[in-house]
Amino acid sequence: MKVKIVEVGLRDGLQNETEIYPTTIKLELIKRLIAANLINIEVTSFVHPKWIPQLADAEQLLVDLPTHHKINYRALVPNTKGFERIKASPLSEIAVFISASQTHNMKNVNKTIAASLKQIKEILNLASTSHLPVRAYISCVFGCPYEGHVSLRVVEELCRDLFDLGVYEVSLGDTIGVAVPCQVKQVLHSLQSSYAGKLAVHFHDTKGLALVNCFVSLEEGITTFDSSIGGLGGCPYAPGASGNVATEELVTMLHGMGVETGIDLAELCETAAWMENIRKKPLPSKVLRSYLAKRGVSGE
Amino acid sequence: MKVKIVEVGLRDGLQNETEIYPTTIKLELIKRLIAANLINIEVTSFVHPKWIPQLADAEQLLVDLPTHHKINYRALVPNTKGFERIKASPLSEIAVFISASQTHNMKNVNKTIAASLKQIKEILNLASTSHLPVRAYISCVFGCPYEGHVSLRVVEELCRDLFDLGVYEVSLGDTIGVAVPCQVKQVLHSLQSSYAGKLAVHFHDTKGLALVNCFVSLEEGITTFDSSIGGLGGCPYAPGASGNVATEELVTMLHGMGVETGIDLAELCETAAWMENIRKKPLPSKVLRSYLAKRGVSGE
Repeated sequence: MKVKIVEVGLRDGLQNETEIYPTTIKLELIKRLIAANLINIEVTSFVHPKWIPQLADAEQLLVDLPTHHKINYRALVPNTKGFERIKASPLSEIAVFISASQTHNMKNVNKTIAASLKQIKEILNLASTSHLPVRAYISCVFGCPYEGHVSLRVVEELCRDLFDLGVYEVSLGDTIGVAVPCQVKQVLHSLQSSYAGKLAVHFHDTKGLALVNCFVSLEEGITTFDSSIGGLGGCPYAPGASGNVATEELVTMLHGMGVETGIDLAELCETAAWMENIRKKPLPSKVLRSYLAKRGVSGE
Repeated sequence: MKVKIVEVGLRDGLQNETEIYPTTIKLELIKRLIAANLINIEVTSFVHPKWIPQLADAEQLLVDLPTHHKINYRALVPNTKGFERIKASPLSEIAVFISASQTHNMKNVNKTIAASLKQIKEILNLASTSHLPVRAYISCVFGCPYEGHVSLRVVEELCRDLFDLGVYEVSLGDTIGVAVPCQVKQVLHSLQSSYAGKLAVHFHDTKGLALVNCFVSLEEGITTFDSSIGGLGGCPYAPGASGNVATEELVTMLHGMGVETGIDLAELCETAAWMENIRKKPLPSKVLRSYLAKRGVSGE
Protein backbone atom coordinates (compact mmCIF):
# COMPACT_ATOMS: atom_id res chain seq x y z
CA MET A 1 0.00 0.00 0.00
CA LYS A 2 1.24 3.49 -0.81
CA VAL A 3 -0.01 6.89 0.32
CA LYS A 4 0.63 10.41 -0.93
CA ILE A 5 1.87 13.08 1.44
CA VAL A 6 1.34 16.74 0.71
CA GLU A 7 3.86 18.90 2.54
CA VAL A 8 2.15 22.13 3.64
CA GLY A 9 4.77 23.46 6.07
CA LEU A 10 5.85 26.29 3.77
CA ARG A 11 2.29 27.55 3.48
CA ASP A 12 0.10 26.48 6.42
CA GLY A 13 3.13 26.18 8.67
CA LEU A 14 4.93 29.43 7.92
CA GLN A 15 1.75 31.53 7.71
CA ASN A 16 1.16 30.70 11.37
CA GLU A 17 4.70 31.46 12.54
CA THR A 18 5.31 34.86 14.10
CA GLU A 19 8.74 35.16 12.42
CA ILE A 20 8.86 36.18 8.76
CA TYR A 21 11.50 34.11 6.99
CA PRO A 22 13.50 35.34 3.99
CA THR A 23 12.97 33.71 0.59
CA THR A 24 16.43 32.15 0.75
CA ILE A 25 15.47 30.16 3.87
CA LYS A 26 12.27 28.97 2.18
CA LEU A 27 14.24 27.88 -0.90
CA GLU A 28 16.72 26.00 1.27
CA LEU A 29 13.84 24.28 3.08
CA ILE A 30 12.32 23.27 -0.27
CA LYS A 31 15.69 21.90 -1.40
CA ARG A 32 15.94 19.81 1.78
CA LEU A 33 12.36 18.56 1.51
CA ILE A 34 13.09 17.42 -2.04
CA ALA A 35 16.24 15.66 -0.78
CA ALA A 36 13.97 13.71 1.59
CA ASN A 37 11.94 12.64 -1.47
CA LEU A 38 8.92 14.82 -0.83
CA ILE A 39 7.23 15.29 -4.18
CA ASN A 40 4.07 17.25 -3.37
CA ILE A 41 5.00 20.58 -1.86
CA GLU A 42 2.64 23.50 -1.27
CA VAL A 43 5.12 26.34 -1.41
CA THR A 44 3.14 29.50 -0.69
CA SER A 45 -0.14 31.39 -0.87
CA PHE A 46 -1.18 34.35 -3.01
CA VAL A 47 -3.28 35.89 -0.25
CA HIS A 48 -2.75 39.67 -0.02
CA PRO A 49 0.52 40.41 1.88
CA LYS A 50 -1.46 42.72 4.17
CA TRP A 51 -3.19 39.65 5.65
CA ILE A 52 -0.28 37.22 5.60
CA PRO A 53 3.05 39.12 5.51
CA GLN A 54 4.86 35.80 6.14
CA LEU A 55 4.12 34.85 2.51
CA ALA A 56 4.52 38.28 0.90
CA ASP A 57 7.40 36.95 -1.21
CA ALA A 58 5.14 34.51 -3.10
CA GLU A 59 6.02 35.78 -6.61
CA GLN A 60 9.75 35.87 -5.93
CA LEU A 61 9.67 32.38 -4.41
CA LEU A 62 8.05 31.00 -7.56
CA VAL A 63 10.64 32.68 -9.77
CA ASP A 64 13.49 31.16 -7.74
CA LEU A 65 12.07 27.63 -7.28
CA PRO A 66 14.54 24.90 -8.20
CA THR A 67 13.54 23.21 -11.46
CA HIS A 68 12.56 19.61 -10.84
CA HIS A 69 10.32 17.88 -13.33
CA LYS A 70 9.27 15.33 -10.69
CA ILE A 71 8.17 17.85 -8.08
CA ASN A 72 4.54 18.96 -7.90
CA TYR A 73 4.77 22.51 -6.64
CA ARG A 74 1.48 23.93 -5.46
CA ALA A 75 0.24 27.29 -4.20
CA LEU A 76 -2.92 28.55 -2.57
CA VAL A 77 -4.91 31.04 -4.62
CA PRO A 78 -7.66 32.91 -2.78
CA ASN A 79 -9.14 34.93 -5.66
CA THR A 80 -8.72 35.93 -9.31
CA LYS A 81 -6.32 38.73 -8.33
CA GLY A 82 -4.17 36.09 -6.64
CA PHE A 83 -4.33 33.99 -9.79
CA GLU A 84 -3.01 36.89 -11.87
CA ARG A 85 0.05 37.01 -9.60
CA ILE A 86 1.10 33.45 -10.45
CA LYS A 87 1.37 34.00 -14.25
CA ALA A 88 4.05 31.87 -15.92
CA SER A 89 5.19 29.66 -13.08
CA PRO A 90 6.52 26.23 -12.27
CA LEU A 91 3.33 25.29 -10.38
CA SER A 92 1.79 21.90 -11.17
CA GLU A 93 -1.47 22.77 -9.52
CA ILE A 94 -3.22 25.36 -7.39
CA ALA A 95 -5.49 25.17 -4.37
CA VAL A 96 -8.57 27.14 -3.37
CA PHE A 97 -10.25 27.27 0.02
CA ILE A 98 -13.69 27.65 1.55
CA SER A 99 -15.10 27.06 5.01
CA ALA A 100 -17.89 24.72 6.04
CA SER A 101 -18.85 27.31 8.66
CA GLN A 102 -20.66 30.42 7.44
CA THR A 103 -19.27 32.51 10.34
CA HIS A 104 -15.71 31.30 9.83
CA ASN A 105 -15.93 31.97 6.09
CA MET A 106 -17.21 35.50 6.76
CA LYS A 107 -14.48 36.21 9.33
CA ASN A 108 -11.80 34.67 7.12
CA VAL A 109 -12.56 36.23 3.73
CA ASN A 110 -15.54 38.53 4.41
CA LYS A 111 -17.75 36.51 2.06
CA THR A 112 -20.66 34.11 2.43
CA ILE A 113 -20.06 30.49 1.48
CA ALA A 114 -22.16 31.07 -1.66
CA ALA A 115 -20.00 34.07 -2.65
CA SER A 116 -16.83 32.03 -2.06
CA LEU A 117 -18.17 29.27 -4.32
CA LYS A 118 -18.80 31.87 -7.03
CA GLN A 119 -15.22 33.09 -6.66
CA ILE A 120 -13.88 29.53 -6.83
CA LYS A 121 -15.81 29.09 -10.08
CA GLU A 122 -14.00 32.11 -11.55
CA ILE A 123 -10.61 30.79 -10.42
CA LEU A 124 -11.43 27.38 -11.93
CA ASN A 125 -12.19 29.05 -15.24
CA LEU A 126 -8.79 30.75 -15.25
CA ALA A 127 -7.04 27.55 -14.10
CA SER A 128 -8.72 25.58 -16.84
CA THR A 129 -7.34 27.97 -19.47
CA SER A 130 -3.86 27.46 -17.95
CA HIS A 131 -4.39 23.67 -17.70
CA LEU A 132 -3.80 23.76 -13.95
CA PRO A 133 -5.57 21.15 -11.82
CA VAL A 134 -7.28 22.58 -8.74
CA ARG A 135 -7.49 21.16 -5.24
CA ALA A 136 -9.98 22.61 -2.74
CA TYR A 137 -9.56 22.90 1.00
CA ILE A 138 -12.66 22.83 3.15
CA SER A 139 -11.93 24.46 6.51
CA CYS A 140 -13.65 23.67 9.80
CA VAL A 141 -14.98 20.29 8.64
CA PHE A 142 -14.90 18.92 12.17
CA GLY A 143 -15.71 22.04 14.16
CA CYS A 144 -15.61 25.85 14.04
CA PRO A 145 -14.03 28.31 16.48
CA TYR A 146 -17.17 30.47 16.26
CA GLU A 147 -20.09 28.14 15.61
CA GLY A 148 -18.80 25.02 17.36
CA HIS A 149 -20.60 22.12 15.67
CA VAL A 150 -20.43 21.93 11.87
CA SER A 151 -23.09 19.94 10.04
CA LEU A 152 -21.98 16.96 7.97
CA ARG A 153 -24.73 17.84 5.51
CA VAL A 154 -23.04 21.21 4.81
CA VAL A 155 -19.73 19.44 4.22
CA GLU A 156 -21.40 16.93 1.89
CA GLU A 157 -23.06 19.73 -0.09
CA LEU A 158 -19.78 21.66 -0.33
CA CYS A 159 -17.98 18.56 -1.60
CA ARG A 160 -20.67 18.04 -4.23
CA ASP A 161 -20.54 21.71 -5.30
CA LEU A 162 -16.73 21.77 -5.46
CA PHE A 163 -16.47 18.58 -7.50
CA ASP A 164 -19.28 19.84 -9.77
CA LEU A 165 -17.24 23.01 -10.32
CA GLY A 166 -14.28 20.87 -11.37
CA VAL A 167 -11.81 20.53 -8.51
CA TYR A 168 -9.98 17.20 -8.70
CA GLU A 169 -9.53 16.73 -4.94
CA VAL A 170 -10.99 18.04 -1.69
CA SER A 171 -8.81 18.26 1.40
CA LEU A 172 -10.92 18.05 4.56
CA GLY A 173 -9.44 20.43 7.11
CA ASP A 174 -9.63 20.19 10.89
CA THR A 175 -8.61 23.85 11.08
CA ILE A 176 -8.66 24.13 14.86
CA GLY A 177 -7.68 20.56 15.75
CA VAL A 178 -10.90 19.51 17.49
CA ALA A 179 -11.70 16.33 15.54
CA VAL A 180 -11.99 13.11 17.55
CA PRO A 181 -11.44 9.66 16.03
CA CYS A 182 -15.07 8.45 16.07
CA GLN A 183 -16.19 11.69 14.40
CA VAL A 184 -13.50 11.33 11.72
CA LYS A 185 -14.68 7.78 11.10
CA GLN A 186 -18.30 8.87 10.76
CA VAL A 187 -17.60 11.85 8.48
CA LEU A 188 -15.24 9.91 6.21
CA HIS A 189 -17.47 6.86 6.09
CA SER A 190 -20.21 9.07 4.73
CA LEU A 191 -18.07 11.05 2.26
CA GLN A 192 -16.05 8.10 0.99
CA SER A 193 -19.22 6.45 -0.31
CA SER A 194 -19.45 9.21 -2.93
CA TYR A 195 -15.87 10.51 -3.28
CA ALA A 196 -13.44 7.64 -2.62
CA GLY A 197 -10.03 8.40 -4.14
CA LYS A 198 -10.79 12.13 -4.36
CA LEU A 199 -10.44 13.14 -0.70
CA ALA A 200 -7.43 14.18 1.37
CA VAL A 201 -7.29 14.91 5.10
CA HIS A 202 -5.64 17.85 6.81
CA PHE A 203 -5.37 17.55 10.59
CA HIS A 204 -4.02 20.02 13.11
CA ASP A 205 -2.43 18.69 16.28
CA THR A 206 -3.89 21.23 18.71
CA LYS A 207 -4.92 18.50 21.14
CA GLY A 208 -2.40 15.83 20.13
CA LEU A 209 -5.03 13.87 18.19
CA ALA A 210 -3.80 14.49 14.64
CA LEU A 211 -2.02 11.13 14.28
CA VAL A 212 -4.97 9.16 15.68
CA ASN A 213 -7.19 10.92 13.18
CA CYS A 214 -4.75 10.10 10.35
CA PHE A 215 -4.82 6.45 11.46
CA VAL A 216 -8.62 6.37 11.40
CA SER A 217 -8.61 8.09 8.00
CA LEU A 218 -6.27 5.42 6.65
CA GLU A 219 -8.65 2.77 7.95
CA GLU A 220 -11.46 4.56 6.11
CA GLY A 221 -9.51 4.34 2.87
CA ILE A 222 -7.95 7.81 2.67
CA THR A 223 -4.60 7.75 0.85
CA THR A 224 -3.69 11.46 0.69
CA PHE A 225 -2.50 13.25 3.84
CA ASP A 226 -1.44 16.85 4.41
CA SER A 227 1.34 17.44 6.94
CA SER A 228 3.97 19.95 7.92
CA ILE A 229 7.69 19.40 8.51
CA GLY A 230 8.37 19.34 12.26
CA GLY A 231 4.73 20.20 12.94
CA LEU A 232 5.65 23.76 11.94
CA GLY A 233 3.01 26.42 12.41
CA GLY A 234 0.25 26.79 14.93
CA CYS A 235 -3.40 27.59 15.29
CA PRO A 236 -4.54 31.20 14.81
CA TYR A 237 -7.37 30.55 17.28
CA ALA A 238 -5.12 29.15 20.02
CA PRO A 239 -1.77 30.97 20.00
CA GLY A 240 0.95 28.69 21.35
CA ALA A 241 -0.83 25.49 20.29
CA SER A 242 0.67 22.97 17.86
CA GLY A 243 0.41 23.22 14.09
CA ASN A 244 -0.30 20.60 11.42
CA VAL A 245 0.49 16.97 12.07
CA ALA A 246 4.27 16.65 11.75
CA THR A 247 5.37 15.02 8.49
CA GLU A 248 8.00 12.87 10.23
CA GLU A 249 5.47 11.65 12.82
CA LEU A 250 3.03 10.70 10.06
CA VAL A 251 5.77 8.97 8.05
CA THR A 252 7.02 7.12 11.17
CA MET A 253 3.55 5.74 11.79
CA LEU A 254 2.98 4.82 8.15
CA HIS A 255 6.36 3.14 7.64
CA GLY A 256 5.90 1.30 10.96
CA MET A 257 2.66 -0.08 9.56
CA GLY A 258 4.30 -1.14 6.31
CA VAL A 259 2.64 1.66 4.33
CA GLU A 260 4.93 3.16 1.69
CA THR A 261 5.40 6.89 1.26
CA GLY A 262 8.59 7.02 -0.81
CA ILE A 263 10.02 9.41 1.79
CA ASP A 264 13.48 9.16 3.37
CA LEU A 265 12.66 9.40 7.10
CA ALA A 266 16.22 10.13 8.31
CA GLU A 267 16.60 12.92 5.75
CA LEU A 268 13.19 14.25 6.78
CA CYS A 269 14.26 14.36 10.44
CA GLU A 270 17.48 16.14 9.46
CA THR A 271 15.34 18.70 7.61
CA ALA A 272 13.13 19.18 10.68
CA ALA A 273 16.27 19.55 12.84
CA TRP A 274 17.62 22.15 10.41
CA MET A 275 14.31 24.05 10.54
CA GLU A 276 14.32 23.95 14.35
CA ASN A 277 17.79 25.52 14.34
CA ILE A 278 16.59 28.26 12.03
CA ARG A 279 13.48 28.77 14.16
CA LYS A 280 15.50 28.98 17.37
CA LYS A 281 12.70 27.37 19.41
CA PRO A 282 11.56 23.75 19.66
CA LEU A 283 9.21 22.33 17.06
CA PRO A 284 6.37 20.23 18.54
CA SER A 285 7.34 16.98 16.76
CA LYS A 286 8.04 14.09 19.15
CA VAL A 287 9.76 12.09 16.44
CA LEU A 288 12.20 14.99 16.04
CA ARG A 289 12.83 15.02 19.83
CA SER A 290 13.43 11.28 19.77
CA TYR A 291 15.65 11.52 16.67
CA LEU A 292 17.79 14.28 18.18
CA ALA A 293 18.08 12.37 21.47
CA LYS A 294 19.33 9.28 19.64
CA ARG A 295 21.65 11.29 17.41
CA GLY A 296 23.07 12.89 20.56
CA VAL A 297 23.63 9.50 22.19
CA SER A 298 25.31 8.01 19.16
CA GLY A 299 27.50 11.10 18.89
CA GLU A 300 26.68 11.66 15.21
CA MET B 1 -18.70 2.78 28.22
CA LYS B 2 -16.28 3.52 31.03
CA VAL B 3 -12.51 3.02 31.27
CA LYS B 4 -10.11 3.02 34.19
CA ILE B 5 -7.06 5.28 34.15
CA VAL B 6 -4.02 4.49 36.25
CA GLU B 7 -1.97 7.63 36.91
CA VAL B 8 1.73 6.68 36.91
CA GLY B 9 3.27 10.18 36.76
CA LEU B 10 4.55 10.05 40.33
CA ARG B 11 6.40 6.81 39.69
CA ASP B 12 7.19 6.27 36.01
CA GLY B 13 7.13 10.01 35.39
CA LEU B 14 9.25 11.28 38.26
CA GLN B 15 11.78 8.42 38.09
CA ASN B 16 12.70 9.65 34.62
CA GLU B 17 12.98 13.32 35.57
CA THR B 18 16.48 14.66 36.25
CA GLU B 19 15.22 16.85 39.11
CA ILE B 20 14.57 15.20 42.48
CA TYR B 21 11.37 16.64 43.95
CA PRO B 22 10.73 16.96 47.69
CA THR B 23 8.03 14.83 49.32
CA THR B 24 5.87 17.94 49.90
CA ILE B 25 5.66 18.56 46.14
CA LYS B 26 4.68 14.94 45.53
CA LEU B 27 1.98 15.17 48.19
CA GLU B 28 0.63 18.37 46.66
CA LEU B 29 0.58 16.68 43.23
CA ILE B 30 -1.34 13.73 44.70
CA LYS B 31 -3.82 16.14 46.32
CA ARG B 32 -4.38 17.84 42.98
CA LEU B 33 -4.74 14.56 41.09
CA ILE B 34 -7.38 13.49 43.60
CA ALA B 35 -9.16 16.83 43.10
CA ALA B 36 -9.33 15.96 39.37
CA ASN B 37 -11.08 12.70 40.38
CA LEU B 38 -8.18 10.37 39.67
CA ILE B 39 -8.76 7.29 41.79
CA ASN B 40 -5.94 4.93 40.79
CA ILE B 41 -2.60 6.52 41.60
CA GLU B 42 0.76 4.77 41.55
CA VAL B 43 2.61 6.93 44.06
CA THR B 44 6.16 5.56 44.19
CA SER B 45 8.53 2.62 43.87
CA PHE B 46 10.50 0.72 46.52
CA VAL B 47 13.47 0.25 44.22
CA HIS B 48 16.76 0.88 46.07
CA PRO B 49 17.43 4.65 46.34
CA LYS B 50 20.88 4.05 44.84
CA TRP B 51 19.20 3.20 41.51
CA ILE B 52 16.37 5.70 41.61
CA PRO B 53 17.18 8.58 43.97
CA GLN B 54 14.11 10.43 42.65
CA LEU B 55 11.94 8.04 44.69
CA ALA B 56 14.19 7.66 47.76
CA ASP B 57 11.44 9.15 49.96
CA ALA B 58 9.08 6.22 49.29
CA GLU B 59 8.52 5.33 52.98
CA GLN B 60 7.97 8.94 54.05
CA LEU B 61 5.56 9.55 51.17
CA LEU B 62 3.43 6.60 52.25
CA VAL B 63 3.35 7.83 55.84
CA ASP B 64 2.18 11.28 54.74
CA LEU B 65 -0.37 10.21 52.09
CA PRO B 66 -3.75 11.90 52.53
CA THR B 67 -6.34 9.43 53.83
CA HIS B 68 -9.01 8.80 51.22
CA HIS B 69 -11.02 5.63 51.36
CA LYS B 70 -11.92 5.97 47.67
CA ILE B 71 -8.34 6.28 46.41
CA ASN B 72 -6.44 3.20 45.30
CA TYR B 73 -2.85 4.05 46.12
CA ARG B 74 -0.33 1.74 44.50
CA ALA B 75 3.45 1.31 44.62
CA LEU B 76 6.01 -0.65 42.66
CA VAL B 77 7.83 -3.37 44.61
CA PRO B 78 10.91 -4.86 42.93
CA ASN B 79 11.82 -7.51 45.51
CA THR B 80 11.07 -8.88 48.98
CA LYS B 81 13.35 -6.26 50.57
CA GLY B 82 11.24 -3.61 48.88
CA PHE B 83 8.13 -5.30 50.25
CA GLU B 84 9.49 -5.09 53.81
CA ARG B 85 9.80 -1.33 53.39
CA ILE B 86 6.08 -0.85 52.76
CA LYS B 87 4.91 -2.45 56.07
CA ALA B 88 1.69 -0.93 57.46
CA SER B 89 0.69 1.41 54.68
CA PRO B 90 -2.31 2.93 52.97
CA LEU B 91 -1.59 1.02 49.73
CA SER B 92 -4.53 -0.73 48.09
CA GLU B 93 -2.30 -2.81 45.87
CA ILE B 94 1.28 -3.28 44.73
CA ALA B 95 2.91 -3.82 41.36
CA VAL B 96 5.79 -6.03 40.25
CA PHE B 97 7.71 -5.86 36.99
CA ILE B 98 9.49 -8.13 34.56
CA SER B 99 10.75 -7.70 31.02
CA ALA B 100 9.80 -9.70 27.95
CA SER B 101 13.38 -9.25 26.75
CA GLN B 102 16.05 -11.36 28.42
CA THR B 103 18.76 -8.75 27.79
CA HIS B 104 16.62 -5.88 29.08
CA ASN B 105 15.72 -7.86 32.20
CA MET B 106 19.41 -8.63 32.84
CA LYS B 107 20.44 -4.98 32.33
CA ASN B 108 17.51 -3.73 34.41
CA VAL B 109 17.67 -6.00 37.47
CA ASN B 110 20.68 -8.27 36.80
CA LYS B 111 18.46 -11.36 36.72
CA THR B 112 17.20 -13.73 34.07
CA ILE B 113 13.48 -13.72 33.31
CA ALA B 114 13.19 -17.06 35.16
CA ALA B 115 14.90 -15.60 38.25
CA SER B 116 12.60 -12.56 38.14
CA LEU B 117 9.57 -14.85 38.01
CA LYS B 118 10.87 -16.69 41.09
CA GLN B 119 11.23 -13.35 42.89
CA ILE B 120 7.73 -12.30 41.86
CA LYS B 121 6.44 -15.55 43.35
CA GLU B 122 8.06 -14.62 46.68
CA ILE B 123 6.56 -11.14 46.57
CA LEU B 124 3.13 -12.62 45.78
CA ASN B 125 3.39 -14.87 48.83
CA LEU B 126 4.07 -11.86 51.05
CA ALA B 127 1.34 -9.83 49.36
CA SER B 128 -1.12 -12.64 49.81
CA THR B 129 -0.46 -12.67 53.59
CA SER B 130 -1.10 -8.91 53.62
CA HIS B 131 -4.21 -9.28 51.39
CA LEU B 132 -2.71 -6.96 48.78
CA PRO B 133 -3.70 -7.51 45.16
CA VAL B 134 -0.74 -7.51 42.75
CA ARG B 135 -0.48 -6.05 39.28
CA ALA B 136 2.41 -7.01 37.00
CA TYR B 137 4.11 -4.85 34.43
CA ILE B 138 5.70 -6.51 31.44
CA SER B 139 8.35 -4.24 29.94
CA CYS B 140 9.45 -4.19 26.29
CA VAL B 141 6.30 -5.96 25.03
CA PHE B 142 6.54 -4.20 21.67
CA GLY B 143 10.31 -3.91 21.30
CA CYS B 144 13.58 -3.83 23.25
CA PRO B 145 16.37 -1.23 23.22
CA TYR B 146 18.94 -4.08 23.11
CA GLU B 147 17.29 -6.97 21.25
CA GLY B 148 14.98 -5.04 18.96
CA HIS B 149 12.17 -7.45 18.11
CA VAL B 150 10.38 -9.14 21.02
CA SER B 151 8.52 -12.37 20.37
CA LEU B 152 4.77 -12.43 20.99
CA ARG B 153 5.19 -16.03 22.18
CA VAL B 154 7.44 -14.85 25.04
CA VAL B 155 4.85 -12.24 26.05
CA GLU B 156 2.09 -14.86 25.94
CA GLU B 157 4.12 -17.23 28.13
CA LEU B 158 4.92 -14.45 30.60
CA CYS B 159 1.24 -13.52 30.85
CA ARG B 160 0.34 -17.16 31.50
CA ASP B 161 3.09 -17.48 34.15
CA LEU B 162 2.16 -14.24 35.88
CA PHE B 163 -1.55 -15.03 36.03
CA ASP B 164 -0.73 -18.55 37.21
CA LEU B 165 1.35 -17.01 40.01
CA GLY B 166 -1.65 -14.94 41.04
CA VAL B 167 -1.35 -11.39 39.71
CA TYR B 168 -4.80 -9.94 39.01
CA GLU B 169 -3.77 -7.73 36.08
CA VAL B 170 -0.93 -7.44 33.58
CA SER B 171 0.03 -4.04 32.21
CA LEU B 172 1.66 -4.38 28.79
CA GLY B 173 4.45 -1.84 28.58
CA ASP B 174 5.87 -0.16 25.49
CA THR B 175 8.91 0.85 27.51
CA ILE B 176 10.75 2.64 24.72
CA GLY B 177 7.75 3.86 22.70
CA VAL B 178 8.32 1.88 19.53
CA ALA B 179 4.91 0.20 19.17
CA VAL B 180 3.00 0.86 15.96
CA PRO B 181 -0.80 0.58 15.70
CA CYS B 182 -0.97 -2.59 13.57
CA GLN B 183 1.44 -4.34 15.95
CA VAL B 184 -0.63 -3.29 18.97
CA LYS B 185 -3.73 -4.64 17.25
CA GLN B 186 -2.05 -7.96 16.52
CA VAL B 187 -0.55 -8.44 20.01
CA LEU B 188 -3.77 -7.48 21.81
CA HIS B 189 -5.96 -9.51 19.51
CA SER B 190 -3.92 -12.55 20.48
CA LEU B 191 -3.72 -11.84 24.24
CA GLN B 192 -7.32 -10.72 24.65
CA SER B 193 -8.55 -14.15 23.53
CA SER B 194 -7.15 -15.54 26.81
CA TYR B 195 -7.03 -12.57 29.17
CA ALA B 196 -9.85 -10.17 28.31
CA GLY B 197 -10.65 -7.91 31.27
CA LYS B 198 -7.28 -8.61 32.91
CA LEU B 199 -4.96 -6.54 30.70
CA ALA B 200 -3.91 -2.90 30.86
CA VAL B 201 -1.74 -0.96 28.39
CA HIS B 202 1.16 1.34 29.16
CA PHE B 203 2.39 3.39 26.22
CA HIS B 204 5.29 5.81 26.02
CA ASP B 205 5.07 8.70 23.60
CA THR B 206 8.67 8.63 22.34
CA LYS B 207 7.51 8.85 18.71
CA GLY B 208 4.17 10.54 19.28
CA LEU B 209 2.26 7.28 18.72
CA ALA B 210 1.02 6.65 22.27
CA LEU B 211 -2.48 8.00 21.68
CA VAL B 212 -2.93 6.07 18.43
CA ASN B 213 -1.90 2.93 20.28
CA CYS B 214 -4.39 3.71 23.08
CA PHE B 215 -7.10 4.15 20.45
CA VAL B 216 -6.28 0.79 18.86
CA SER B 217 -6.21 -0.82 22.34
CA LEU B 218 -9.66 0.55 23.07
CA GLU B 219 -10.87 -0.92 19.79
CA GLU B 220 -9.40 -4.26 20.90
CA GLY B 221 -11.42 -4.13 24.11
CA ILE B 222 -8.82 -2.83 26.58
CA THR B 223 -10.43 -0.74 29.34
CA THR B 224 -7.46 0.02 31.64
CA PHE B 225 -4.87 2.59 30.57
CA ASP B 226 -1.72 3.84 32.30
CA SER B 227 -0.83 7.50 31.78
CA SER B 228 1.16 10.30 33.30
CA ILE B 229 0.04 13.85 34.13
CA GLY B 230 1.37 16.26 31.50
CA GLY B 231 3.28 13.40 29.87
CA LEU B 232 5.77 13.77 32.72
CA GLY B 233 8.93 11.70 32.55
CA GLY B 234 10.97 10.50 29.62
CA CYS B 235 12.69 7.50 28.20
CA PRO B 236 15.95 6.31 29.81
CA TYR B 237 17.06 5.00 26.40
CA ALA B 238 16.43 8.28 24.59
CA PRO B 239 17.21 11.22 26.89
CA GLY B 240 15.13 14.22 25.89
CA ALA B 241 12.31 12.11 24.45
CA SER B 242 8.72 12.24 25.72
CA GLY B 243 7.45 10.19 28.66
CA ASN B 244 4.22 8.26 29.16
CA VAL B 245 1.12 9.21 27.23
CA ALA B 246 -0.22 12.38 28.91
CA THR B 247 -3.27 11.74 31.10
CA GLU B 248 -5.06 14.86 29.84
CA GLU B 249 -4.46 13.88 26.17
CA LEU B 250 -5.85 10.40 26.82
CA VAL B 251 -8.86 11.82 28.69
CA THR B 252 -9.47 14.39 25.93
CA MET B 253 -9.60 11.62 23.34
CA LEU B 254 -11.79 9.36 25.45
CA HIS B 255 -14.27 12.06 26.45
CA GLY B 256 -14.41 13.24 22.83
CA MET B 257 -15.44 9.71 21.89
CA GLY B 258 -18.12 9.56 24.57
CA VAL B 259 -16.08 7.20 26.75
CA GLU B 260 -16.41 7.95 30.47
CA THR B 261 -13.42 8.22 32.79
CA GLY B 262 -14.95 10.03 35.77
CA ILE B 263 -12.10 12.54 35.50
CA ASP B 264 -12.48 16.34 35.62
CA LEU B 265 -10.53 17.41 32.52
CA ALA B 266 -10.23 21.10 33.42
CA GLU B 267 -8.94 20.25 36.89
CA LEU B 268 -6.53 17.77 35.31
CA CYS B 269 -5.17 20.47 32.97
CA GLU B 270 -4.78 22.84 35.93
CA THR B 271 -2.79 20.12 37.69
CA ALA B 272 -0.57 19.65 34.64
CA ALA B 273 -0.11 23.44 34.46
CA TRP B 274 0.86 23.50 38.14
CA MET B 275 3.37 20.69 37.58
CA GLU B 276 4.84 22.52 34.60
CA ASN B 277 5.40 25.58 36.78
CA ILE B 278 7.14 23.43 39.39
CA ARG B 279 9.20 21.74 36.68
CA LYS B 280 10.24 25.08 35.15
CA LYS B 281 10.34 23.58 31.65
CA PRO B 282 7.54 22.66 29.24
CA LEU B 283 5.79 19.32 29.59
CA PRO B 284 5.25 17.52 26.26
CA SER B 285 1.43 17.50 26.47
CA LYS B 286 -0.29 19.21 23.54
CA VAL B 287 -3.58 19.39 25.40
CA LEU B 288 -1.78 21.36 28.09
CA ARG B 289 -0.35 23.74 25.44
CA SER B 290 -3.80 24.20 23.95
CA TYR B 291 -5.41 24.65 27.40
CA LEU B 292 -2.88 27.29 28.44
CA ALA B 293 -3.27 29.09 25.10
CA LYS B 294 -7.03 29.26 25.55
CA ARG B 295 -6.74 30.25 29.20
CA GLY B 296 -4.39 33.04 28.11
CA VAL B 297 -6.80 34.27 25.43
CA SER B 298 -9.80 34.29 27.74
CA GLY B 299 -7.73 36.19 30.33
CA GLU B 300 -8.41 33.68 33.08
